Amino acid sequence: MIKKFLMTPGPTQIPPQVLLAMARPIIHHRTAEYSELFARVNDNLKYVFQTKNEVLSFASSGTGGMESAVVNLCSPGDRVLVAAAGKFGERWRDLAQAYGLGCECLEYEYGQPVDPAGIGRSLDADPGIRAVFVTHSETSTGVVNDMQAIGAAVAGHPAVLVSDSISGMGSAEIRTDEWSVDVVVAGSQKALMIPPGMAFVSVSEKAWALAERSKSPKFYFDWLKARKGLSQPQPQPTTAFTPAVSLVVGLDAALSLIREEGLENLFARHIVLGRACRAAVKALGLELFSPDGDRSSSVTAVRVPEGIEDGRLRTLMRDKFGVQLAGGQGPVKGRIFRIGHCGYYNYTDIIVTITALELALKELGHPVEPGAGIAAAEKIFAGSLA
Amino acid sequence: MIKKFLMTPGPTQIPPQVLLAMARPIIHHRTAEYSELFARVNDNLKYVFQTKNEVLSFASSGTGGMESAVVNLCSPGDRVLVAAAGKFGERWRDLAQAYGLGCECLEYEYGQPVDPAGIGRSLDADPGIRAVFVTHSETSTGVVNDMQAIGAAVAGHPAVLVSDSISGMGSAEIRTDEWSVDVVVAGSQKALMIPPGMAFVSVSEKAWALAERSKSPKFYFDWLKARKGLSQPQPQPTTAFTPAVSLVVGLDAALSLIREEGLENLFARHIVLGRACRAAVKALGLELFSPDGDRSSSVTAVRVPEGIEDGRLRTLMRDKFGVQLAGGQGPVKGRIFRIGHCGYYNYTDIIVTITALELALKELGHPVEPGAGIAAAEKIFAGSLA
Repeated sequence: MIKKFLMTPGPTQIPPQVLLAMARPIIHHRTAEYSELFARVNDNLKYVFQTKNEVLSFASSGTGGMESAVVNLCSPGDRVLVAAAGKFGERWRDLAQAYGLGCECLEYEYGQPVDPAGIGRSLDADPGIRAVFVTHSETSTGVVNDMQAIGAAVAGHPAVLVSDSISGMGSAEIRTDEWSVDVVVAGSQKALMIPPGMAFVSVSEKAWALAERSKSPKFYFDWLKARKGLSQPQPQPTTAFTPAVSLVVGLDAALSLIREEGLENLFARHIVLGRACRAAVKALGLELFSPDGDRSSSVTAVRVPEGIEDGRLRTLMRDKFGVQLAGGQGPVKGRIFRIGHCGYYNYTDIIVTITALELALKELGHPVEPGAGIAAAEKIFAGSLA
Repeated sequence: MIKKFLMTPGPTQIPPQVLLAMARPIIHHRTAEYSELFARVNDNLKYVFQTKNEVLSFASSGTGGMESAVVNLCSPGDRVLVAAAGKFGERWRDLAQAYGLGCECLEYEYGQPVDPAGIGRSLDADPGIRAVFVTHSETSTGVVNDMQAIGAAVAGHPAVLVSDSISGMGSAEIRTDEWSVDVVVAGSQKALMIPPGMAFVSVSEKAWALAERSKSPKFYFDWLKARKGLSQPQPQPTTAFTPAVSLVVGLDAALSLIREEGLENLFARHIVLGRACRAAVKALGLELFSPDGDRSSSVTAVRVPEGIEDGRLRTLMRDKFGVQLAGGQGPVKGRIFRIGHCGYYNYTDIIVTITALELALKELGHPVEPGAGIAAAEKIFAGSLA
């Protein structure tokens, strides 16, 4: 009997009450019943995004939400700045290039954070830059960038700041309005605790002004169409195109859980999960790849120990011990593994994961002291909210 | 106690076994387990599409699939032909215009079919036309166009033929390969019996040749990226971006039901549902808006009788009798109502719908003979497969 623990940074575990909500008979999306639900979802998204801005939603993966920012804010030939330190930072660059933008890319090594001062210098050097695209939580490395400092570096420049917070939203705090982040993109399948298939995008007034002038071709991801749906005649709010109804129903249930927990407790829990995970990994003699600080609350990235083959380790953990981790991507493929703990996770998941890691390392002949990781994690969990 | 019957052309009713499949704990999409499931889904999609071509899938509503056809087949300035006789035909025109294409639009009145000979004449007159965009099943009117004749009209011309079969796929037959339809777009929330949130696109060799040369900007809906995912290293097949995992799991269950029934029975059932629905409506003295022929197997559109207010009729049917119909769109808003019967529907749904219609019309003071519609429907159902 194998009990399965999905410990990847998306998809993430889905609360049973959310799964059951999505299993109810489907409802039609052009009805007062749906609009009432969608209005509540939109209010709760604003709460999690910490914004007064509208949060638009799209039936797409997170990349669709990122693409929407590029095509709605920019016109062909516009100059933009991308700061990339991982696979998802590079996606901003690829998107900018696909849409014919002039893209300056500040690249940092995988595992490094983005340098806010570098962004400020680039903007000083070229005040014509239309938008700055950054990654909040770089899922490929576990690094969470300092969005407050990046926001401060961009504020005062004419450029808008756009953040991919797909794996950060709801686990690593981002204060959208307070930190002056004009556009924040989130996805459904991370800390928002529902399956993949939806993207969310908050848009500031500064960003709307650009969207109203943008000349990039677009249709499905057109923000103006999405905004119109929010305020069209009854029943409202609605979306321009058929929404992913069952996911929206699930999201309503998931956001209720978040409101019940409260943002302060939510972020405190994730910080504890990160601390416990890192303490345990270090106690096993493994080396962290993601930074050892409280911002690393979504994903813990760990260097694969010398003499261990990453694929064998993760397959053993999954097939024998039921715990699924993620591997490395891009240049760190095979060199790191990643433990996702953004979303529906508490101390039990970390304890099981670390136990499975101890057992698997032992089985592969890597020296570990049984229980050493657990002991370190328990110290963190004692008296915590996780 | 109200039992709810969703009789709209998308979302449609979802089989309970599909709902339960989607309620299982989620799995990760970069695993052999997912790829095995996705490979089976792709095979079964080819079966329903009646094609040997690859069927690409996207996490988006059907409109996203339509947009993918426009941006992958065409380059800015290309000339295309759109034949439109309803809201969704017009969407092709709007998409073509959004992407800077030169668009000739053959427009027909709502409720009329598209004229295949007219398409042939336009292609003869302008052999430089890159693509022809048509609607197979026009959800807004209930008209199902003669795709075989349209295919024959386009074949032999250099243009590719693109069909929006979102509400037709799996209920109104389209023989993709035999009828030379280069690109067929389908959606998840109609006869494929799962919630909204996925689009499917089959692509012929002739269409791939265009896709490889297309210069329209694109990223999320890039067919070449999607094709690469189907053949990348293990685990394969996969998608370029995170798929809507729970919907794919549901689709696997839904397509199993379709394979079990068999395409021949599937289409025969839908033809009977359409016949019975039309016979019942006529027996109540109401006037059909959609054509009274066997191709009308997805949606039955009915003129709102003189003296009855459409909104009141549908609200009464929904809130008192539990049966939800769809209203008219565009120029026929308020003038027709639509009964969707594409997907998980059999005789019971039609009988309940017609009964609710009889009761509601009576309550609104419209003369109906109780049971007259049911009697007409029963005659059709006797000995049928529906």
